[in-house]
Amino acid sequence: METDRPDGHQSESQKNPMFQIFFILLEVTIVILYGIFVEFHYDPVDPNLPWTEEPQTEFVTGYPVLQDISVMMFVGFGFLMTFLRTHSWSAVGFNFILTVVVFQMYILYSGFWSRCVSDDHWDLKIQVGIETLVTAFYCCASILISFGGVIGKLNLFQLLVMAFIEACFYSLNEAIVFEKIHIEDIGGSITIHTFGAYFGLSVAFIISPKQTKGHPKNSSNYNSNLFAMIGTLFLWMYWPSFNCFLALNPEDRIRSVINTLLALTGSTTAVFITSSFFKKGKLNMEDVLNATLAGGVCVGSSADQIVYPFAALFVGYFAGFISCIGFERLSGFLQRKVGLYDTCGINNLHGMPGVFGGIFSAIFIGALTEDTLGFRVEDRFEGRTASEQGGLQMAGLGITLGIAIVTGIITGCILKLGCFKGPTDLFEDQVFWEME
Amino acid sequence: METDRPDGHQSESQKNPMFQIFFILLEVTIVILYGIFVEFHYDPVDPNLPWTEEPQTEFVTGYPVLQDISVMMFVGFGFLMTFLRTHSWSAVGFNFILTVVVFQMYILYSGFWSRCVSDDHWDLKIQVGIETLVTAFYCCASILISFGGVIGKLNLFQLLVMAFIEACFYSLNEAIVFEKIHIEDIGGSITIHTFGAYFGLSVAFIISPKQTKGHPKNSSNYNSNLFAMIGTLFLWMYWPSFNCFLALNPEDRIRSVINTLLALTGSTTAVFITSSFFKKGKLNMEDVLNATLAGGVCVGSSADQIVYPFAALFVGYFAGFISCIGFERLSGFLQRKVGLYDTCGINNLHGMPGVFGGIFSAIFIGALTEDTLGFRVEDRFEGRTASEQGGLQMAGLGITLGIAIVTGIITGCILKLGCFKGPTDLFEDQVFWEME
Amino acid sequence: METDRPDGHQSESQKNPMFQIFFILLEVTIVILYGIFVEFHYDPVDPNLPWTEEPQTEFVTGYPVLQDISVMMFVGFGFLMTFLRTHSWSAVGFNFILTVVVFQMYILYSGFWSRCVSDDHWDLKIQVGIETLVTAFYCCASILISFGGVIGKLNLFQLLVMAFIEACFYSLNEAIVFEKIHIEDIGGSITIHTFGAYFGLSVAFIISPKQTKGHPKNSSNYNSNLFAMIGTLFLWMYWPSFNCFLALNPEDRIRSVINTLLALTGSTTAVFITSSFFKKGKLNMEDVLNATLAGGVCVGSSADQIVYPFAALFVGYFAGFISCIGFERLSGFLQRKVGLYDTCGINNLHGMPGVFGGIFSAIFIGALTEDTLGFRVEDRFEGRTASEQGGLQMAGLGITLGIAIVTGIITGCILKLGCFKGPTDLFEDQVFWEME
Repeated sequence: METDRPDGHQSESQKNPMFQIFFILLEVTIVILYGIFVEFHYDPVDPNLPWTEEPQTEFVTGYPVLQDISVMMFVGFGFLMTFLRTHSWSAVGFNFILTVVVFQMYILYSGFWSRCVSDDHWDLKIQVGIETLVTAFYCCASILISFGGVIGKLNLFQLLVMAFIEACFYSLNEAIVFEKIHIEDIGGSITIHTFGAYFGLSVAFIISPKQTKGHPKNSSNYNSNLFAMIGTLFLWMYWPSFNCFLALNPEDRIRSVINTLLALTGSTTAVFITSSFFKKGKLNMEDVLNATLAGGVCVGSSADQIVYPFAALFVGYFAGFISCIGFERLSGFLQRKVGLYDTCGINNLHGMPGVFGGIFSAIFIGALTEDTLGFRVEDRFEGRTASEQGGLQMAGLGITLGIAIVTGIITGCILKLGCFKGPTDLFEDQVFWEME
Repeated sequence: METDRPDGHQSESQKNPMFQIFFILLEVTIVILYGIFVEFHYDPVDPNLPWTEEPQTEFVTGYPVLQDISVMMFVGFGFLMTFLRTHSWSAVGFNFILTVVVFQMYILYSGFWSRCVSDDHWDLKIQVGIETLVTAFYCCASILISFGGVIGKLNLFQLLVMAFIEACFYSLNEAIVFEKIHIEDIGGSITIHTFGAYFGLSVAFIISPKQTKGHPKNSSNYNSNLFAMIGTLFLWMYWPSFNCFLALNPEDRIRSVINTLLALTGSTTAVFITSSFFKKGKLNMEDVLNATLAGGVCVGSSADQIVYPFAALFVGYFAGFISCIGFERLSGFLQRKVGLYDTCGINNLHGMPGVFGGIFSAIFIGALTEDTLGFRVEDRFEGRTASEQGGLQMAGLGITLGIAIVTGIITGCILKLGCFKGPTDLFEDQVFWEME
Repeated sequence: METDRPDGHQSESQKNPMFQIFFILLEVTIVILYGIFVEFHYDPVDPNLPWTEEPQTEFVTGYPVLQDISVMMFVGFGFLMTFLRTHSWSAVGFNFILTVVVFQMYILYSGFWSRCVSDDHWDLKIQVGIETLVTAFYCCASILISFGGVIGKLNLFQLLVMAFIEACFYSLNEAIVFEKIHIEDIGGSITIHTFGAYFGLSVAFIISPKQTKGHPKNSSNYNSNLFAMIGTLFLWMYWPSFNCFLALNPEDRIRSVINTLLALTGSTTAVFITSSFFKKGKLNMEDVLNATLAGGVCVGSSADQIVYPFAALFVGYFAGFISCIGFERLSGFLQRKVGLYDTCGINNLHGMPGVFGGIFSAIFIGALTEDTLGFRVEDRFEGRTASEQGGLQMAGLGITLGIAIVTGIITGCILKLGCFKGPTDLFEDQVFWEME
């Protein structure tokens, strides 16, 4: 089981005990901080007392949705990135460990920043319930999006450090835009997709070595694309769960589900049409694997705000169309002209659709009236008018972009430090995995 | 990424701008019709008002079941058909786009036919809720079954036109048998499986070219069968959700779940035994991938009506047995004698078990008495006696078969028209996909 | 489709009509016993009567969790074992049929033993509801764990007989430790994992032939490990469902979910660190596929009892660490010194973490006080004190180990009888499957 392959790749990380020291210190810190600061939202209850309604409702409305979102993280993102034919193990394996570590860290980060931003609740411990788990997975999603931009070009040490920094600023940004600015962003077009994409692109811009260009291993094969399709489909199918969890009431949840499904059908059809134009009648698997999901990204900020089904369809068509153009043309352009190497095309799938999702949310919310809603718009937005809330959406988008790009560039510079010993061989599993 | 393979297959559809025109027109029409005729079942609610019970119940009872059914469509049907070793991309990719387009169309079709048949509600818009999404996926299932009969022999243009026509008549048939004839068919043995199978077989009978016979690419390999097993297992596991959603009350739902599970265990054991007889002690993967699911098909019309668990087991054994015989013997016979080429064996998995499922439902319902039910049989069937309802089941089965076969033959003839430019190379992904 | 391969493997079972006779008799017996002894928990209800609360609650709290557990059985365990490059079909196919048959048998066995142990309810039929289905899958899990120890070395006949015997004693042990000794074991560290692992190891110890040692086909390849990762991830993601179903109230359920997730994150990080030590900076896919799950196993007995989140993390770190050491060192040691060939390393993933899970539950429960709980400890454990209940946990663990090992050894001896005609070629699908 431990026979070396004849071409004997040297392990990068084996020369680097700093990786293990960092990881152990991180975990020791986490368990200590959990011991001091984290408790359960619900304490045990005397089984002889009658049940209370609240945790039952939390379980039945929250748990199935949580599980869908969990599948999106591990199988969805993990397998989507297996398309790299010599990097599939790292795709799914690094995705696994990054999700797990970010999940652990987010609970601490978010508790901290939330108290900083609101300057309150310092006397209370961080309480973990179903919603905490879901928001932790939202943070994982953002970091996994960034991972998609740099996959194949960083080793696990660098990825963990990136996640360590990014999760911190993700949580800070989240606290600012939700608790200070009060934006609406149920499915995270702004806070999750835009943040993750532009953080990841900033890192990728800094760290991508020259040999990334036209690298022969930056490619897929027949089976690796089939594995990737597993990821795509689970992301597609469970996206309504991702976009509906934070809804205020069941009516909004159901509308979020339907709007997300409709937007996804829109982007999927748009991609099949657009891809067949670019490929002269054939289809491009890269488009189908990725751009079909753009509708879910783009409708994320407004899934609970859209009051006409056709509008969700339209958002989907638009997102699928621009995302597909991104994969077919923009990615190549950015590589040639800017030197931006974006392994999975996260600018096309999460970046542009996320930004447009934020803009759409400003438009849709700005256009809400008492007529369309059936009640005063101010009742929905804690006293703010539709146009005020629309403006806040744009402010939230701008702040998110700013924080993501600045912290991403800084992170990229840190990761280029010699102490990380980045991989010499790109897009190659044998550097990281014992091959039999 | 765009290097042509040396054997340079020509793309069929690249010569056919009609495909793209058709697809664009279809989507433009859909979005316009949604704008005019479709609205949400639930409007937004003032967050200051107390919650109403109904949407909460709809969400917690409906949404997890909906998601299971969604997985059956995209991963279940999609991967089940990846067994074709040179057609796996098309299997999962065409399955993807067909599901999406049928999902969009069904909501319009079903709203239209339902108003035609009942001649009422013309003043109301089509309201979309969780149940609409589930019944849309039921329609997708029927079209995907037909797809299984013709996969590898039609291009995407032909498949879209087939889906366009089939979804129309599926919805018409559904409106007739449920709203006029009032059959019981909770899991769709009649309306979904029988309809989809015999429509698909009729199309396959008309369009299958001669070179289908013993085509070398109509075959599987080691990994393609493993991918297919992903499809089989997700269909198997989530079939109880498929068969229980439309139950009238939670007691019926739970019985539908248990009956479906028991029937599936019955068909699975029957297949392992039967296959080992045919293969002299070995097992045939084709049988295991397909016929194991026959119990879920066959119990579909009566999952909520069966009042003894052993009866569900028996239905499963029977369905698995005939389905396995179908794969081992009948398919070959029909190929040789009738010239019917049924790529996935939909007659064996959906056709025969669906018809027998309809017949079983007539028997089980006909045998219901006040003793077995605990209340008057007429209270269950809106005043009809058990034998009357049993007769209606047979009538519904006959009408479904008639509509499916006639419209299937007509559709097949349409698809043979030259304007569609059917694929010259069968069971081959390179005709449809840009290969790297 | 039936062309023999040139190396023409002989089918083992084709020479053995006893297999088919056994299987048919088993199924005939099952259907007869279901007819006599099994009924639905809920009868049909008059649709004109108002709904009762109870089945609705059972459905919404139970069904989504049941479905997750179902996925763990068929996809989780099934694909986890596909890592064997020439035995993937048998892994997923035999896993399929074993789950189905054990599911059928458990309902009868458990009804019988439960009546024997409590000597009551002999006049009542066995009632099947959602909980019955879940506990049936728990039994399947235990048998599938044992399957992991012997996979590749037994034919399907032997596996069915093993399952037939093991499910019987699993159910007996379950009835004893829950209904007589009254242990707490919500996620089955003791009753499921310890039982399954040591039963399977006992069988493996008896039946493993000498040529198992260093067998060239006892190995994986690039794609087989990717398929296995599908199994690992679905087990990981849905493990909270496995460990929470039997909780007494929604508060306990939610804590079980969170404790299980935290323990899994702990074991996953521990494995990535530990594996990189053993592999000098690289990672071992076998560790990542298996030992990452050890946290879910180890927290199983106390998921609802742990009242501090950091304790769940700690259990996870510990379990991941010992499980990884098991895979890297202990397995090889036991092979060389004891001659114990454990195909999937079930001692490392289920055995040791299961035993420690039982011990941890004794410690955690023994340490419960009125302070930590908020109510009298005796109210939780039907009048027993914390230390009394802790002692019962250890007693339950001992009894389970005893029954598992003794019945496992006996079963191993039975399976070595000549009438079963064990496979001559190990870890090879062609012995069991018709290859095209």
